[in-house]
Amino acid sequence: MKISVGILGGTGYVGVELLRLLAVHAKVEVKWVTSEKFSGKKIWEVFPGLYKFLDSECINIAQLSKLDRVDLVFSCLPHGASMRFVGRLIESGARVIDLSADFRLKNPDIYEEWYKAKHIQRELLKEAVFGLPELHREDIKDAKLVANPGCYSTSVILGLAPLAFRKLIKEDSTIVADSKAGMSGGGRAPSLESHYSESNESVVAYRVEGLGQKSEMEEVLSGLAGERVKVAFIPHLVPMNRGILTTIYAALKGEENLDEILGLYKEFYSHSPFIRIYEKESYPGVKNVRYSNFCDIGVGLQEDKFIAIVALDNLGKGASGQAVQNMNIMFSFPENEGLNFPGVFP
Amino acid sequence: MKISVGILGGTGYVGVELLRLLAVHAKVEVKWVTSEKFSGKKIWEVFPGLYKFLDSECINIAQLSKLDRVDLVFSCLPHGASMRFVGRLIESGARVIDLSADFRLKNPDIYEEWYKAKHIQRELLKEAVFGLPELHREDIKDAKLVANPGCYSTSVILGLAPLAFRKLIKEDSTIVADSKAGMSGGGRAPSLESHYSESNESVVAYRVEGLGQKSEMEEVLSGLAGERVKVAFIPHLVPMNRGILTTIYAALKGEENLDEILGLYKEFYSHSPFIRIYEKESYPGVKNVRYSNFCDIGVGLQEDKFIAIVALDNLGKGASGQAVQNMNIMFSFPENEGLNFPGVFP
Amino acid sequence: MKISVGILGGTGYVGVELLRLLAVHAKVEVKWVTSEKFSGKKIWEVFPGLYKFLDSECINIAQLSKLDRVDLVFSCLPHGASMRFVGRLIESGARVIDLSADFRLKNPDIYEEWYKAKHIQRELLKEAVFGLPELHREDIKDAKLVANPGCYSTSVILGLAPLAFRKLIKEDSTIVADSKAGMSGGGRAPSLESHYSESNESVVAYRVEGLGQKSEMEEVLSGLAGERVKVAFIPHLVPMNRGILTTIYAALKGEENLDEILGLYKEFYSHSPFIRIYEKESYPGVKNVRYSNFCDIGVGLQEDKFIAIVALDNLGKGASGQAVQNMNIMFSFPENEGLNFPGVFP
Amino acid sequence: MKISVGILGGTGYVGVELLRLLAVHAKVEVKWVTSEKFSGKKIWEVFPGLYKFLDSECINIAQLSKLDRVDLVFSCLPHGASMRFVGRLIESGARVIDLSADFRLKNPDIYEEWYKAKHIQRELLKEAVFGLPELHREDIKDAKLVANPGCYSTSVILGLAPLAFRKLIKEDSTIVADSKAGMSGGGRAPSLESHYSESNESVVAYRVEGLGQKSEMEEVLSGLAGERVKVAFIPHLVPMNRGILTTIYAALKGEENLDEILGLYKEFYSHSPFIRIYEKESYPGVKNVRYSNFCDIGVGLQEDKFIAIVALDNLGKGASGQAVQNMNIMFSFPENEGLNFPGVFP
Repeated sequence: MKISVGILGGTGYVGVELLRLLAVHAKVEVKWVTSEKFSGKKIWEVFPGLYKFLDSECINIAQLSKLDRVDLVFSCLPHGASMRFVGRLIESGARVIDLSADFRLKNPDIYEEWYKAKHIQRELLKEAVFGLPELHREDIKDAKLVANPGCYSTSVILGLAPLAFRKLIKEDSTIVADSKAGMSGGGRAPSLESHYSESNESVVAYRVEGLGQKSEMEEVLSGLAGERVKVAFIPHLVPMNRGILTTIYAALKGEENLDEILGLYKEFYSHSPFIRIYEKESYPGVKNVRYSNFCDIGVGLQEDKFIAIVALDNLGKGASGQAVQNMNIMFSFPENEGLNFPGVFP
Repeated sequence: MKISVGILGGTGYVGVELLRLLAVHAKVEVKWVTSEKFSGKKIWEVFPGLYKFLDSECINIAQLSKLDRVDLVFSCLPHGASMRFVGRLIESGARVIDLSADFRLKNPDIYEEWYKAKHIQRELLKEAVFGLPELHREDIKDAKLVANPGCYSTSVILGLAPLAFRKLIKEDSTIVADSKAGMSGGGRAPSLESHYSESNESVVAYRVEGLGQKSEMEEVLSGLAGERVKVAFIPHLVPMNRGILTTIYAALKGEENLDEILGLYKEFYSHSPFIRIYEKESYPGVKNVRYSNFCDIGVGLQEDKFIAIVALDNLGKGASGQAVQNMNIMFSFPENEGLNFPGVFP
Repeated sequence: MKISVGILGGTGYVGVELLRLLAVHAKVEVKWVTSEKFSGKKIWEVFPGLYKFLDSECINIAQLSKLDRVDLVFSCLPHGASMRFVGRLIESGARVIDLSADFRLKNPDIYEEWYKAKHIQRELLKEAVFGLPELHREDIKDAKLVANPGCYSTSVILGLAPLAFRKLIKEDSTIVADSKAGMSGGGRAPSLESHYSESNESVVAYRVEGLGQKSEMEEVLSGLAGERVKVAFIPHLVPMNRGILTTIYAALKGEENLDEILGLYKEFYSHSPFIRIYEKESYPGVKNVRYSNFCDIGVGLQEDKFIAIVALDNLGKGASGQAVQNMNIMFSFPENEGLNFPGVFP
Repeated sequence: MKISVGILGGTGYVGVELLRLLAVHAKVEVKWVTSEKFSGKKIWEVFPGLYKFLDSECINIAQLSKLDRVDLVFSCLPHGASMRFVGRLIESGARVIDLSADFRLKNPDIYEEWYKAKHIQRELLKEAVFGLPELHREDIKDAKLVANPGCYSTSVILGLAPLAFRKLIKEDSTIVADSKAGMSGGGRAPSLESHYSESNESVVAYRVEGLGQKSEMEEVLSGLAGERVKVAFIPHLVPMNRGILTTIYAALKGEENLDEILGLYKEFYSHSPFIRIYEKESYPGVKNVRYSNFCDIGVGLQEDKFIAIVALDNLGKGASGQAVQNMNIMFSFPENEGLNFPGVFP
């Protein structure tokens, strides 16, 4: 038996990665896909790489009320837009995985501050589960609404969760998290920043003053630690299509040695099929995880800093892959159904 | 029931792509992998992206006689080296798919001229089947030895086969085939030519005087046409990891229009699941086929030239993907088993 | 004594390359720069790399009549727009180098066919000199209006001029010219085609049916040969910022050997400081000419085809560099003034 | 009057960048270039982009004693090798700019620890001047031996010097410096790490445990501050040819606001032609400095951290450009002679 699935906003990069994964997922039938720009076009006309896989037409979201009821909707709409539809869908009986930022932060005031938008679904927010399976697997099972985490915050939270959980991070000490991300993270809408000749052969920092996902990291890690965790976070764009490498520098309370920490990480993630902890003195690169759902982690020390090097694919474990993992959990499929493949290489 | 498989020379790019595909192929168990450079190391130590998928150690090829008999061996050894092992393996009862150039050319004299090496298996050559399923599916089924085609010749032959088969190519007129290939085609051994800073932000022609695969194209196309077909072929290296785009310029005998040609192509490949023919005025790019087994073809006209634009992945349909497709046919698995996924994007 | 210069449309890629070259040219003072998008902004605000070099503000082209009269205007406006201003400027006493396609084709009917625009300056067209110094140095000296050649046609014409001039190209035989170009050739306006993640890790053909510069090549080469020369030309986009590699395949009338041809090329270009002819069996790559004004050429043979491999920088010798070279000739500066530097590497 | 110059080890990336700069420097004549790998070859045979610029042959370093005495030698030999020649050259009357790490650290014990090599020129070390003109212009003027700084330490020192000089950095607080560097920093010798297909589409951290240049940063910054400065430093390789972006996170002692800090930076560098300080809320990218001698700096705040974003070209201001700047100072040429050009774009 397959579940029926709908996708809101399926022709951006998050959407097309979902389509790529769901097109060959054994338990899923994609019933409809909405697209503002491409409504009326066949999916494979928009993405010729999907020719012979998906033959249906993109639908205008204005038609939403006439569409078939489905078991699950993935919303790939931008933040602000997503919350305008999610409530209605849940009322219709569908479960929802929202890949926007709209339901990730428990505190809507912080949301409004960072995203410069009014939160119009404060009640629904209370029901939302933060969809990081490695931390919230049980809650995800029964959730009506899963807020799929941001790509950066996935890397930072997974890279620090064992330390936070054990309260090993030094208080009053701001963690530094420095991310290097591929260009697809900026989405599919053309802009000068993402114009090939502008971004190729360059690296830039963006949002030196911080960005919304910083508050996701802080909220979840503080929750785990039971004490306030602060992160100074700067994302950088590097000339590649996919992937994030996050370098984390954290001061520790105590004098734990690297073997102890490594043991802790392995144990913490021992039931998590998509987390791979590296042996001492080896560290993951983006090339080990591209187009996969893995999050690879290596740990080290320098001066008085604990170092974690975290690699994941921004559209895989950082977005659509993780959404499929959440779906698998919600519908009691094997957690790695449709995701059990290594990244591509080279 | 799974078949047992061995891989000779499994730690180059052709080898690791085979490993990636076979690691999740439902009908295959990889029994052993040889590697000159990495014998004694675990596969995932060589390719960390395969961590949690393949746990066995690479074997030195000197141990070959002690290894388990397997149903099928893929040889990813370089030409010249491959033929030194293939005969022995076939005698042991294994079937072989050879990814080197050693058994592709029916005429060993031409082989020796292009590859500057003595052909020491002239008898075995007679049994070898050229492993292009779209042309030789029936012969592949029962073959003991399949010569997996070159990546460039796959693109040129598939781009011209319908024309050659119908004898539409003008006689005494040299076809021009101009390929643009990703850097992985040059293999994994470091060299100045493949050094990042030398090849990035550049394009170069290599082998302006032609290369061995030119004779593959000419032999197969001449065979199809029943008359001599000549190709002027120049490959170029472009700064990307994977993929080939080949632009073919051919003079036609007659006055066929584009609709007729397009119809011919669609019909010719109607039973070939991995060939996708594009509609008029649309043409494939490498991005549509990356890391997949598809070969996408678009056709057009300019001046008195027929134009075919052919895109495939040099390690997919151009090597390891095609080898898996051949294996599927040899062992009566569905032809697209383990290959039925779209390319990655973006 | 410096000449005074104005630039129309100076904030695209052709414009900024001119600014980079002119900012340090000993004989030039840039008086004004127009920009539709950035009027009111300082040049270095638009291009921070020019900080400390150019401090003036971009002007709206509507202010043109109020601007200082200058000795020379470079027009970097798009075709169609350029011819609307060039006549007026010439009347004002300025000489003009037009980098658009508006004055390149002697036959305005062919212009209108390819560029889908009415030619409104047919009289002025008669005065325009095609600004390829290697062929038209004498005419450029006194020209009021120089039509700067296209980047592709520069590569094809320079790669074939010695053959055409000696009438060595086989009649009734279509030449194939296949170009591989960097992304900056598509300009600075964002689009899906030039979006980083779409174009990176891919190669595509565009304009399989031909494009306007094809008629430039044919007109100039036919003029040189005194007989009709036909070219089948397809440009391709490859993932790099700058540069063009053009591979030319031409049938010859006679039986010239490679030494004779090489000698011919060396002699033909012996007074051209920016053409570098390579020795036998060596061929240029884009990396040898990036960000320079050189055009490097290597020649070879394959089957019955003469092969020329031509490398140049699309914004250097293919546009702005060549425009500066033309300016040097027009104002009796040394031909290589401000251009006498090697390309960058690596 | 030109000075005569020799180059030791001129065919790596540092060497060829020097050659590119010196080939068109008005005050310099390159007398000889040594090369282990390419002795006997003409420089332009090794680097075809220098064809028509440098016609001399590379010399084997074994011939050093027979070579003409020159006014200045640039040593581009690797550390360890460089110090074996520098003493001899200075005795011969030449002045030396050493681009290796051999004379950068005042404390030879720290050198030996980081570089795993015995320091055999401890006396000479006392005479060496750390060649960062923005800090040591006066000492460089008369120096016999200039130790050209490392590319990473140049970025970190210049990014923090005004703060250190004013003692504004919080004591006992480890600064985090995270660098993203282009692949040319790894040199021209082929290796798996720098193989195109391995490094393209990836980002990796290397030397998570720190590297030699870390001690350069700490020594120079501690010297400026008059108190111990500690840096946790991790360099990363990103897929581009040239450039470094360093992101610095430092805790401040006091409550300085951003305007005060910005004013301090502008003042500190007011006489330094190659340092460009950005206005508030704007930050440099690698694209602003490629192939130039500029070091661009933007400053900001996040949480309790001062942030500096520093961009330079690893072979420009990070190596060969800075060496030419040092030469200009040593021989009383204008400081920007031969370097007064903007970076290339796009």
